[in-house]
Amino acid sequence: MSNVFENLITKIKANPSSLFQKDFLLTWEKTYGELETILAVAEALKYLRDNNISAKVFDSGLAISQFRDNSTRTRFSFASAANLLGLAVQDLDEGKSQIAHGETVRETSAMISFLSDIIGIRDDMFLGAGNAYMREVGAALDEAYADGVLPQRPGIVNLQCDIDHPTQSMADLLHLKTVFGSLDNLKGKKIAMTWAYSPSYGKPLSVPQGIIGLMTRLGMQVDLAFPEGYGLIPEVVQLAGKQASDSGGSFRVTNSMDDAFKDADIVYPKSWAPFQVMERRTTLLRANDHDGLKSLEKECLANNARFMDWECTEDKMKLTKGGKALYMHCLPADISTVSCKQGEVEASVFERYRVPLYKQAGFKPYIIASMMLTNRFADPAETLKSLYESKTSRVR
Amino acid sequence: MSNVFENLITKIKANPSSLFQKDFLLTWEKTYGELETILAVAEALKYLRDNNISAKVFDSGLAISQFRDNSTRTRFSFASAANLLGLAVQDLDEGKSQIAHGETVRETSAMISFLSDIIGIRDDMFLGAGNAYMREVGAALDEAYADGVLPQRPGIVNLQCDIDHPTQSMADLLHLKTVFGSLDNLKGKKIAMTWAYSPSYGKPLSVPQGIIGLMTRLGMQVDLAFPEGYGLIPEVVQLAGKQASDSGGSFRVTNSMDDAFKDADIVYPKSWAPFQVMERRTTLLRANDHDGLKSLEKECLANNARFMDWECTEDKMKLTKGGKALYMHCLPADISTVSCKQGEVEASVFERYRVPLYKQAGFKPYIIASMMLTNRFADPAETLKSLYESKTSRVR
Amino acid sequence: MSNVFENLITKIKANPSSLFQKDFLLTWEKTYGELETILAVAEALKYLRDNNISAKVFDSGLAISQFRDNSTRTRFSFASAANLLGLAVQDLDEGKSQIAHGETVRETSAMISFLSDIIGIRDDMFLGAGNAYMREVGAALDEAYADGVLPQRPGIVNLQCDIDHPTQSMADLLHLKTVFGSLDNLKGKKIAMTWAYSPSYGKPLSVPQGIIGLMTRLGMQVDLAFPEGYGLIPEVVQLAGKQASDSGGSFRVTNSMDDAFKDADIVYPKSWAPFQVMERRTTLLRANDHDGLKSLEKECLANNARFMDWECTEDKMKLTKGGKALYMHCLPADISTVSCKQGEVEASVFERYRVPLYKQAGFKPYIIASMMLTNRFADPAETLKSLYESKTSRVR
Repeated sequence: MSNVFENLITKIKANPSSLFQKDFLLTWEKTYGELETILAVAEALKYLRDNNISAKVFDSGLAISQFRDNSTRTRFSFASAANLLGLAVQDLDEGKSQIAHGETVRETSAMISFLSDIIGIRDDMFLGAGNAYMREVGAALDEAYADGVLPQRPGIVNLQCDIDHPTQSMADLLHLKTVFGSLDNLKGKKIAMTWAYSPSYGKPLSVPQGIIGLMTRLGMQVDLAFPEGYGLIPEVVQLAGKQASDSGGSFRVTNSMDDAFKDADIVYPKSWAPFQVMERRTTLLRANDHDGLKSLEKECLANNARFMDWECTEDKMKLTKGGKALYMHCLPADISTVSCKQGEVEASVFERYRVPLYKQAGFKPYIIASMMLTNRFADPAETLKSLYESKTSRVR
Repeated sequence: MSNVFENLITKIKANPSSLFQKDFLLTWEKTYGELETILAVAEALKYLRDNNISAKVFDSGLAISQFRDNSTRTRFSFASAANLLGLAVQDLDEGKSQIAHGETVRETSAMISFLSDIIGIRDDMFLGAGNAYMREVGAALDEAYADGVLPQRPGIVNLQCDIDHPTQSMADLLHLKTVFGSLDNLKGKKIAMTWAYSPSYGKPLSVPQGIIGLMTRLGMQVDLAFPEGYGLIPEVVQLAGKQASDSGGSFRVTNSMDDAFKDADIVYPKSWAPFQVMERRTTLLRANDHDGLKSLEKECLANNARFMDWECTEDKMKLTKGGKALYMHCLPADISTVSCKQGEVEASVFERYRVPLYKQAGFKPYIIASMMLTNRFADPAETLKSLYESKTSRVR
Repeated sequence: MSNVFENLITKIKANPSSLFQKDFLLTWEKTYGELETILAVAEALKYLRDNNISAKVFDSGLAISQFRDNSTRTRFSFASAANLLGLAVQDLDEGKSQIAHGETVRETSAMISFLSDIIGIRDDMFLGAGNAYMREVGAALDEAYADGVLPQRPGIVNLQCDIDHPTQSMADLLHLKTVFGSLDNLKGKKIAMTWAYSPSYGKPLSVPQGIIGLMTRLGMQVDLAFPEGYGLIPEVVQLAGKQASDSGGSFRVTNSMDDAFKDADIVYPKSWAPFQVMERRTTLLRANDHDGLKSLEKECLANNARFMDWECTEDKMKLTKGGKALYMHCLPADISTVSCKQGEVEASVFERYRVPLYKQAGFKPYIIASMMLTNRFADPAETLKSLYESKTSRVR
């Protein structure tokens, strides 16, 4: 076995994990060791693919995707991950605007799962509803399995909800691990998760929440910056503070982008809608109040416009450690003069970091595949080892 | 080989069948032995899956699905069945409202079939058209195969038409076989296929027709009950009568739900639109007469409302054998106070039978897979045996 | 090895080709030997399929399809080809009307390609834009691969653009090779690529351009006929002339359908919109000028109506060599009295050639699979030989 692969296997074996048959809904529900396992399994799967070794652990089986919001990147990442492991994707398309409840969720969850191994759900439109919906599906699956309705209990992967975006934040972490050499090297590094101006509104909170909810566990100095009134879900902010102190890092909230950028090793400037706006928007969406939604949008865009200087410019980048902080984004970014008149980031900054940004995105299929594999296989190290040893070519 | 599996193989071998390369369009076009084979092959496939043995009989190949009406359950069942056997699903989406004719059907049928093994069709909106369309496709495929245009003649599986819903009724029968222990045990049992009130209208006739068209062949006492004016296609009702007398069972039509429920072993209360209404609706749909459709709907809902007491209540259930008849439904049901104010079934009745209902639905993927396999393999017993013996794991 | 298959392998080996890792965008960018290889690989893949030998060269992997115009035939051909080789299809559906540019194309191309092997694109609506878009995607993929963003550089297959329709013209050529016995036998044969009347308008130019751009390389006598004002892209017409003289054939443009049909061995009568109209239409589409589009359509249909005698009738067929020219069409055809009142072809002519037409269409999946395989495998002869020798059954 190659040294690289053997080290990954050793790392996976070293971490006692209970990812098996557990849904992946929030990173902070997982132990640090479990998160390390997710990363190492993702790296091992990438190693196999890069070396033309098949990672097909399923001879047949379905991976169901349910996208309750538009998506290209995550859709392709999910499809790639499923295909890598041997699963066929089947879309469940219930219509985007509809929030299913109670009986319908219970019944549909069973009906689609008779021969399914994995269900991936994206549901980020409604504050208080997305993650809750995933748990409702999970409870329905538990019940159907206990009742003997299902021969197996499919695993759920959160492809973005109102609270967290774990496949994004874990892909981001794998990117950081790759760039900085190890998770240990991230200790003490400063990351600035900051709001940025965008000419659109209503972007979900899951990315900034996912970042502060994950990076505070690495002993990093996490700064969260946003203009007054653009806060996140209070519980997640509290959690970030607690986690930072537990991990020997720090967590600070500031209303100054400059402050956050100062001496940062990593910056993550990204627009989002204020928590309170998302709450009002959810109420209006539920009520199907189109006029209310329109006037809320107008009000918010007007408010956004007060903060057009929250842009990741070359000048702002100069504030960072040696002027060379790693710029991150979940993509697509609002690039000033490129995808909009003025947006989250100056074109020259984005362009300088384009290649690392694309590499960052490239980890997502492997993170999703890792979440799938660790959900279905009790001993992922053994599973990966046997894939390596059987050396079936992916491409003949 | 396990005893269970060996018994299934023996049963399949015992029944000389000519399912090979024959479309599955109506259960009453198949011999009793052929239906037994469909059930046994379905059970064998379920055994393989439950024991983690791969049932992949296709290394590659396409299963085409054409849904001319919305569908979640049947869509997933079809996708699961195709995937179980190794086929990839490709949707043919011509637009729902369009009824293709003549040249178009002939040409499209050939064009989509060059590398296809199975075509599943759901076409239940137009009375007199759905099953006819399937036969038109079949004739086109026969011709294209005879002409050397196609290297193989793909098999057609009826996923619901205006006349029958064979994947539903056969899944229902496998459920009954499982609950009552054997097909023989169904002899003399009373099943009440009854209309039930629903606040919606236009539900297809294929389920009640499929049930009376199948269960009358098992020597059962089949009661069909509906309010005056809610009759089914007369030819199917006649056929049910003839089959009942041939099989040593009985078939009775009544306008009293209580009458049908009395001493029933099984009840299947379900709403449908009257045959005459479906005829008028088909004419209006063809004419694209929106106003006519609206006023027909209004008229029918008003008429439905006269029969709101056709609900499967706890009181009605007390009329059945020992008050303990098996409650069946093809799902989703209109559950009073749950999915609607008042509907087909009282909530407590539905809830008591929820687990068996879900199990009933769980047979459908295997029934569809069985129809696919018996269509493509001349000796299904040998095919299944060789799958068992090669013991390839489905999940590594 | 069978003689047939061995001869194909010998032919593929004889042709030094550089199809490996090169996009297939225009037939005239490929050498004659490369085109011969595409045909022979397609025939070899068809041989394998017809003899139930698996052609799965991918254990897993994605084939992405991007259809920027409606399609049933090409969609199914692409899906069949991908499945034949072991790839799963994933659709990229950006919305039909949108023309993506610059950053978006660069980014999306990378984002969908992390685990993808092939990208098939159909983009034929906008003159000057379709083929250009494919090259833009190609450049983005080159860059992403060079930057280490992608572990492999997916190959692009042109599924129809504004300039060429290579999977169609190559399938047509394989049909001609099959009917006439060899490519050599096509030398000196006369093919009439002629405009024909249709009651619709706006049909792309890619088929006639593809035909004259390919058939002029075979030493054929190619006649292009259309009513005054119905010209093709001038550069393609010029190229056809040059190629004809290089190959020892001829190329002639005429405004008389009779002239073109006279003594023709093959006729290909098909409607298209004039080049100048497509230019105006592209401008209007880009400007989203609905009124302009409507009035352009009206003007064009009126103009079309002046040429209703451009119909492939029995009388016109009598002008061809022995009255027995091979009639070709890319399908679907506008058949007079069948699919429209009056159209491109008389019903009895079409019906007489229906079987050959369907066979013609049946080559497309294999042509696409051949383009995929030669793009991904450096030594297609060896790849095909090893498939033959391992003799894995496609159907168990």
